[in-house]
Amino acid sequence: MAKIKLADISTRAPKDWDKAETKAKTLKITEELDELQNLLFAEGKHSILVVIQGMDGSGKDGVIRNVLGNMNPQGVTVKSYKAPTAEELSHDFLWRIHHHAPAKGMIQVFNRSHYEDILVTRVHKWCDDETARMRMNAINDFEKLLQEHNNTHILKFYLHVSPEEQHQRLSERMKDPAKMWKYNEKDFDEAKLWDVYMAMYEDCFNNCDQPAWTIVPADQNWYKEYIIATQLRDLLTGLNMQFPGLKK
Amino acid sequence: MAKIKLADISTRAPKDWDKAETKAKTLKITEELDELQNLLFAEGKHSILVVIQGMDGSGKDGVIRNVLGNMNPQGVTVKSYKAPTAEELSHDFLWRIHHHAPAKGMIQVFNRSHYEDILVTRVHKWCDDETARMRMNAINDFEKLLQEHNNTHILKFYLHVSPEEQHQRLSERMKDPAKMWKYNEKDFDEAKLWDVYMAMYEDCFNNCDQPAWTIVPADQNWYKEYIIATQLRDLLTGLNMQFPGLKK
Repeated sequence: MAKIKLADISTRAPKDWDKAETKAKTLKITEELDELQNLLFAEGKHSILVVIQGMDGSGKDGVIRNVLGNMNPQGVTVKSYKAPTAEELSHDFLWRIHHHAPAKGMIQVFNRSHYEDILVTRVHKWCDDETARMRMNAINDFEKLLQEHNNTHILKFYLHVSPEEQHQRLSERMKDPAKMWKYNEKDFDEAKLWDVYMAMYEDCFNNCDQPAWTIVPADQNWYKEYIIATQLRDLLTGLNMQFPGLKK
Repeated sequence: MAKIKLADISTRAPKDWDKAETKAKTLKITEELDELQNLLFAEGKHSILVVIQGMDGSGKDGVIRNVLGNMNPQGVTVKSYKAPTAEELSHDFLWRIHHHAPAKGMIQVFNRSHYEDILVTRVHKWCDDETARMRMNAINDFEKLLQEHNNTHILKFYLHVSPEEQHQRLSERMKDPAKMWKYNEKDFDEAKLWDVYMAMYEDCFNNCDQPAWTIVPADQNWYKEYIIATQLRDLLTGLNMQFPGLKK
């Protein structure tokens, strides 16, 4: 498989891609998703894990609200991972993750994930390279477990924004009353570590690629949402699910 | 490593092994264990997982009560695994296990364990050989995760009783008022599957051997308890633990 180099991948939709048409398509797909999720739940054979990673301001919350959040919340749960608690730190790094793995019939969304343990931790050198390698192997084993032993289909999305777009979004948080709650002075410090983050992300994409990551151009929210909605719809459609008949 | 053949391993203490002396030694060791567990808890660097498997009537509850149950319950937890619930079955087979993996500083005892998913399930053909192989690989990956990422030291004990001793113990449950609550008619049906159980246990010991299993002669409770107490004591002593000094 070709190695991923983020600098070679555009953060924007292809030129001349029609915004209005795309938004209309996404709306139609989210309606399909609502039906497909109901079928997934009813059939109860498969489970879906959607991992969303990206820099601050890359629009993780927006995807969840606009694409994934339109399905029936009885069958879709979202877990946001923050810095680990003292209890979580007293266990292996996948302990808090495994607990939230999706049950059959469910769609589980991870807003940030176990991947932070080889991203932010490496950028700040809380985790050395050797430990990072061991964690990558453990992640691969863990994702294999979910896939092979619980019919879990995993989608991994990296929301790929440009540093310029990120800077603009973080700055908006200082001005827009509806966004101020998201403002965190430290985000600007993190942004200065951009190149190190990109290197760690690339290492992660290239070593934890079963299944492979989707690099989602994310400077335009409408395009990002379209890509993610499409992938989830295509995955669910491909499962050839059936409503079970009457139980005997 | 030499393959384990249960038929070649005695279910009794070596000839002329002194019962009274052994019981006195075990008592002394359990006192040491109480101190060592306190140190484990105080230091908070290591965690211990004790897996206890064995046929019905092999004395799993007795080991827990007499050897493992004398330590401070704040630092020792026991999880007994029964047939999985509907919720547990909607997840991969290690989901309910991982949740009870020991935190740093803790001793976790499993009374039956994830190994039932390649034992009772195979005996009754609820799990085919291919699935069993995949589960063994998943178990090996999982135990590696605990060992490498949370300093978890795993002891795996098989309580090795003879079918004659088992039959006697199961029969006693029908007569002794203090044991009747353990009586289960189905245990006699399971006992008829003895040879299949032994074959599945051997397959498990030989394929999931990182760390290796200890086959504990278990026809005499005093000898069984001595072996288990000794192994746990030796493991804890070998960790060279230190009380942490004052926090600065």
